[in-house]
Amino acid sequence: MKIKIIAVGKIKENIYSEKISEYIKWISKDIKIELVALKNYKETKLNHRLTSYIRKSNYNIFMSDGGKKNTSIQFSNFIFNQNKDLIFFIGGPNGHSEKLLNHADKILSLSNMTFPHEMALLILTEQLYRAISIKKRTKYHRY
Amino acid sequence: MKIKIIAVGKIKENIYSEKISEYIKWISKDIKIELVALKNYKETKLNHRLTSYIRKSNYNIFMSDGGKKNTSIQFSNFIFNQNKDLIFFIGGPNGHSEKLLNHADKILSLSNMTFPHEMALLILTEQLYRAISIKKRTKYHRY
Repeated sequence: MKIKIIAVGKIKENIYSEKISEYIKWISKDIKIELVALKNYKETKLNHRLTSYIRKSNYNIFMSDGGKKNTSIQFSNFIFNQNKDLIFFIGGPNGHSEKLLNHADKILSLSNMTFPHEMALLILTEQLYRAISIKKRTKYHRY
Repeated sequence: MKIKIIAVGKIKENIYSEKISEYIKWISKDIKIELVALKNYKETKLNHRLTSYIRKSNYNIFMSDGGKKNTSIQFSNFIFNQNKDLIFFIGGPNGHSEKLLNHADKILSLSNMTFPHEMALLILTEQLYRAISIKKRTKYHRY
């Protein structure tokens, strides 16, 4: 399994990007992972760019407030029950358009709360690392 | 109104503490806010220390997975509808004990997912800053 994250909007703040890089480094010891940062283009161009990353052979997961809410354990089970490569799409400051969400195999929500897109990416990478820890039963996740 | 955050566990990572400090600086322009970091003592001592911060004259909010989930707008309304000072209690790696949660005026959950306590503190400070932005109708929060 491979994981690709397509994130809209620059990660302007070093503080976030340092920690995101650290989680990605940790994840990559177990799963091949790639992060693609897209410019926050205007809607039509942005949707066009995002759509170009959708693969029918992959499992396309869109992060959005209104999506399904998983516990960390449910998220771990979900990840490791897939036999396709996973692509996560994180929207920019305006989230994803409805039109784009029609392409989703799964719409996933981290919280009812609205987070800055950089924080959403930080949380997603931490949860992916946690998902691996849960699968491997290391001490990182406390039950 | 004043806000106090009692957080269990050292903020070991500079990356988190820098960003948390930044949000606290931004919040403090509008609301007096204080952050108290407690050592992650063993349960009995920890509960004793945490209990010593509970004030009946204040609104005591415990952060816990199983608590009520607010949207950012609901959270903002909640904050600004209080006429008491607010105290937020964030547990350490093991969360709060059931015994302690009996003292809560409100139990609040950021997500179904389990986050590191430092990330929970980061999210809480960002949501407090966002709550002010929602109240003041600045552009930080997009509707």
